[in-house]
Amino acid sequence: AKLITEKTLKDILPIRGLNSHKGNYGRALMIAGSRGMTGAAILASKAALRSGVGMLHLAIPEELNDILETQLTEVMTVPFQVPKGNAKEFTGVEDIMGSLQRSNVVALGPGLGRSKETEVIVERVLREAKCPVILDADALNVLPKMLKLLKKVKSRCILTPHPGEMAKLTGLSIPEINENRIKVAKDFSRKYGVIVVLKGASTVITDEEGHVYLNTTGNPGMATAGSGDVLTGIITALVGQKINLIGAAMAGVYIHGRSGDEAAKITGEYGMIASDMVREVPRIITEIVNKKKAFD
Amino acid sequence: AKLITEKTLKDILPIRGLNSHKGNYGRALMIAGSRGMTGAAILASKAALRSGVGMLHLAIPEELNDILETQLTEVMTVPFQVPKGNAKEFTGVEDIMGSLQRSNVVALGPGLGRSKETEVIVERVLREAKCPVILDADALNVLPKMLKLLKKVKSRCILTPHPGEMAKLTGLSIPEINENRIKVAKDFSRKYGVIVVLKGASTVITDEEGHVYLNTTGNPGMATAGSGDVLTGIITALVGQKINLIGAAMAGVYIHGRSGDEAAKITGEYGMIASDMVREVPRIITEIVNKKKAFD
Amino acid sequence: AKLITEKTLKDILPIRGLNSHKGNYGRALMIAGSRGMTGAAILASKAALRSGVGMLHLAIPEELNDILETQLTEVMTVPFQVPKGNAKEFTGVEDIMGSLQRSNVVALGPGLGRSKETEVIVERVLREAKCPVILDADALNVLPKMLKLLKKVKSRCILTPHPGEMAKLTGLSIPEINENRIKVAKDFSRKYGVIVVLKGASTVITDEEGHVYLNTTGNPGMATAGSGDVLTGIITALVGQKINLIGAAMAGVYIHGRSGDEAAKITGEYGMIASDMVREVPRIITEIVNKKKAFD
Amino acid sequence: AKLITEKTLKDILPIRGLNSHKGNYGRALMIAGSRGMTGAAILASKAALRSGVGMLHLAIPEELNDILETQLTEVMTVPFQVPKGNAKEFTGVEDIMGSLQRSNVVALGPGLGRSKETEVIVERVLREAKCPVILDADALNVLPKMLKLLKKVKSRCILTPHPGEMAKLTGLSIPEINENRIKVAKDFSRKYGVIVVLKGASTVITDEEGHVYLNTTGNPGMATAGSGDVLTGIITALVGQKINLIGAAMAGVYIHGRSGDEAAKITGEYGMIASDMVREVPRIITEIVNKKKAFD
Repeated sequence: AKLITEKTLKDILPIRGLNSHKGNYGRALMIAGSRGMTGAAILASKAALRSGVGMLHLAIPEELNDILETQLTEVMTVPFQVPKGNAKEFTGVEDIMGSLQRSNVVALGPGLGRSKETEVIVERVLREAKCPVILDADALNVLPKMLKLLKKVKSRCILTPHPGEMAKLTGLSIPEINENRIKVAKDFSRKYGVIVVLKGASTVITDEEGHVYLNTTGNPGMATAGSGDVLTGIITALVGQKINLIGAAMAGVYIHGRSGDEAAKITGEYGMIASDMVREVPRIITEIVNKKKAFD
Repeated sequence: AKLITEKTLKDILPIRGLNSHKGNYGRALMIAGSRGMTGAAILASKAALRSGVGMLHLAIPEELNDILETQLTEVMTVPFQVPKGNAKEFTGVEDIMGSLQRSNVVALGPGLGRSKETEVIVERVLREAKCPVILDADALNVLPKMLKLLKKVKSRCILTPHPGEMAKLTGLSIPEINENRIKVAKDFSRKYGVIVVLKGASTVITDEEGHVYLNTTGNPGMATAGSGDVLTGIITALVGQKINLIGAAMAGVYIHGRSGDEAAKITGEYGMIASDMVREVPRIITEIVNKKKAFD
Repeated sequence: AKLITEKTLKDILPIRGLNSHKGNYGRALMIAGSRGMTGAAILASKAALRSGVGMLHLAIPEELNDILETQLTEVMTVPFQVPKGNAKEFTGVEDIMGSLQRSNVVALGPGLGRSKETEVIVERVLREAKCPVILDADALNVLPKMLKLLKKVKSRCILTPHPGEMAKLTGLSIPEINENRIKVAKDFSRKYGVIVVLKGASTVITDEEGHVYLNTTGNPGMATAGSGDVLTGIITALVGQKINLIGAAMAGVYIHGRSGDEAAKITGEYGMIASDMVREVPRIITEIVNKKKAFD
Repeated sequence: AKLITEKTLKDILPIRGLNSHKGNYGRALMIAGSRGMTGAAILASKAALRSGVGMLHLAIPEELNDILETQLTEVMTVPFQVPKGNAKEFTGVEDIMGSLQRSNVVALGPGLGRSKETEVIVERVLREAKCPVILDADALNVLPKMLKLLKKVKSRCILTPHPGEMAKLTGLSIPEINENRIKVAKDFSRKYGVIVVLKGASTVITDEEGHVYLNTTGNPGMATAGSGDVLTGIITALVGQKINLIGAAMAGVYIHGRSGDEAAKITGEYGMIASDMVREVPRIITEIVNKKKAFD
């Protein structure tokens, strides 16, 4: 297993070209949020914007659209209809798929809820996406029903489970996972041909070929609601900027951990909230890129 | 009576373990807010998050859900139905009770309103809660109708009345209370087997066995709308983090008063608002915990 | 005419007593805001809170309630019904009057709109208020229809017109007013028995007995939307804190101008917005009160 | 081609007069925003306020009004009805036209959407506006259908296309435009009698008489969603303050680029978002105006 340090990232984050426009930095689609859990969508979206994505679209149930538009000035929303009462057809998913076709990365899961609609969305994305797919939170919670689809995805996938979600994906108990973090992630990556980001005190990243990376940043203050959503946003933005997937995952967990470390310098570990981490992301990326410039 | 100082808190606030996750820091339920008074719910929730609770659910009437989701990114809401017109059945309370069962602390009262629904909620919580219960504001206003229930609560209770609310709870006049603050609180604690936090210039805390504690922090700038809601949020978060109840009450009033003292350094006493206090909470907790680290 | 300087205010703003609670600092009622103009209500309310009022209620048409609750955490709203279509009865005004009876100051006008409902509200307040009344903006715009009522008000009134509003109140042209600012204000004060705050480059204050005061603070950057609403909020809060009306008007215009001067140090005169002024208010009040402490 | 530098702006931005009121700094109308894209309206409006406009009205579909009122305290909104279902008559446009008559500058396009309604709005504004017109984004996207109207506008126009929008306006390909940026802009300006602001790494400005100006500020971090909306807001405010149109365009692009350069000092190029640029605008304007004062 290789440790992820600032040095590791030197070759991952590129210097921006002078003649670039927002299209050069990707068009990402985030599918996140449901009644009671719009905050997860807000955090993931803000983290993506603060990590440099050119344009971000957020797919959100129409009845929640105003909440998200009020909170996310630089994000465009894609409101979709959710069936009410005993209506069966979830035609709103077509609006999401339409946006997916114009995107170069899609992330899904934060605050989505464990509804029938989430199942439909995850299945459709896995079947139809031609761009990289990042699966988190409730997308992982419904995934056990359709694990085989993972192998059929046209592009590559990153999964970002915490031990509880990994338990559902593997059928193992949480203690079994915590005692064999590297092996569990490695086996899953190989079996399904996906990148796994197994979260925890030292986050483990494994890829399809058996490489293993361990993160070195972060602190217990990050054990707070919304922390994982921020990670999803960072990785999404990096993939959108055409950084290779394993590089984006590595840079993502490193930057996420550092954002928590920087936030803790201001608030301490008790009072840190996920929004504090988002605020720190730009300066951490800049610090890494500037060191690169110094070397070049 | 023992004075509450920074030294007192040295053994109350623990140092966070390296291998912890958000579940280790509690899942709190806040029941607060009504039309015209959502601010109380916002302040109590933000204060809880800024005091380190792992996850916070806020139960809120469905028609107000969007206001709260817009304001509280890291909080999950539990929207519940309130009967309209002459409908009689308040079935929405079951959604609150469902969330209560998955929580390790519940706080109720800030901005709840003095409605029939508030009475139902308070009664149900007192009868059914297996976790500690914190009663404030409008929960205290409806409590006189069901005082006997206090003795039947399965877990322990903290009540945080100001002198006006204490008058309703005891039948005494406000001047009678102000002239005998310690005795009044002590008698109530003994009689009903609850912890009392009697707010005022030096807040008095009394417990079931007759112990008395006096707070030493705070200033007249804290005499502003929403100040009490912040205190409720802080105590809730500390109890959620498994700090014993009397310790949480003591640490809560101390931190709350210090947050007002720090805020006053920036705004002075006239222009301080409750949100300013919330902002100061993390640094005050960190200061106390760091001193502890220095001693250990 | 006497100049208003920091020295003038030394005896106006009291030092807060140690044993005070929010009830000691007033319960103010603000009647402000309409569709398209909720910002005026937000600015006046925030300025009142930042000037030290204990509790603030904002009366607002029910359909706009959520906007205001989202923006104003420490304020309680009083939503009232406005007649739709060709409904004639404006029963919602009774909710406002109910709140008025429990208030010790009322301010009305910012962003109210020039509707029939505004006329009803102004008339009812002038007839029924037992506490001081502050009239601004659209309350002044509808006032010419009921000028005689000014003389029948049970308490005292402060009017805060700019030259355009003063023109409507007096029938004079704007140039006539600008050339005779002191005389025009003085005559109106005497004739109707009210305090007049005639806004402009050096704001003129006149009272019922013919006293004249001129403000010395402010800059052209304050010529921006919402600036006047901030002034109304400051004066309202000071009256709520039981400062005498002429003192509150004098302190209000001085603090308001200084808030613009402080804001301009940060943003300059072009880019200053009314919210910037609100932010500066607490520090200006503290500076004045601290000098007082030094003298005492 | 002449370079736009700080020196160029010395004679463009006036020093504010002591005896001015908000009416002296213009009454601007912004027509922007649609479902999913209210952020563009927010950014353009905030940038206009931060560039010194006296009053700003934002025309917005009624169903989105609450989002904008919640976000834009100092702006007044003009909510207008949009036809639902198969309704054909777009009577809501009359509300916009009513506001247009009371304005001294109108900007339209950011986030408007490419709907039938946008076409109606653009056509009506081009036919009826007596004040300067600024066309951006979706107003440019629908313009090819009515290019001839540009010549009939009663006042003058500024168009702010990026190369993609310029391609639609001219029928040229994006590479053809990028290789002949100056010529393409110059030809369009002459042909239609408008000022063109062709955005890109060095923004090109051309006027009706063949003058060409090149901007010298900005960085690749500005390649982010909403960046163009900020530029539109700045130019709108400057025209509203009666600065001549070519001066406003020149000052606008210079200030916009500098706002990105200042923001990048704080966040770096990756994590910069459009809101960061808005924040920097006032200080940049002040710096320019202060140098002017030093020279005078």
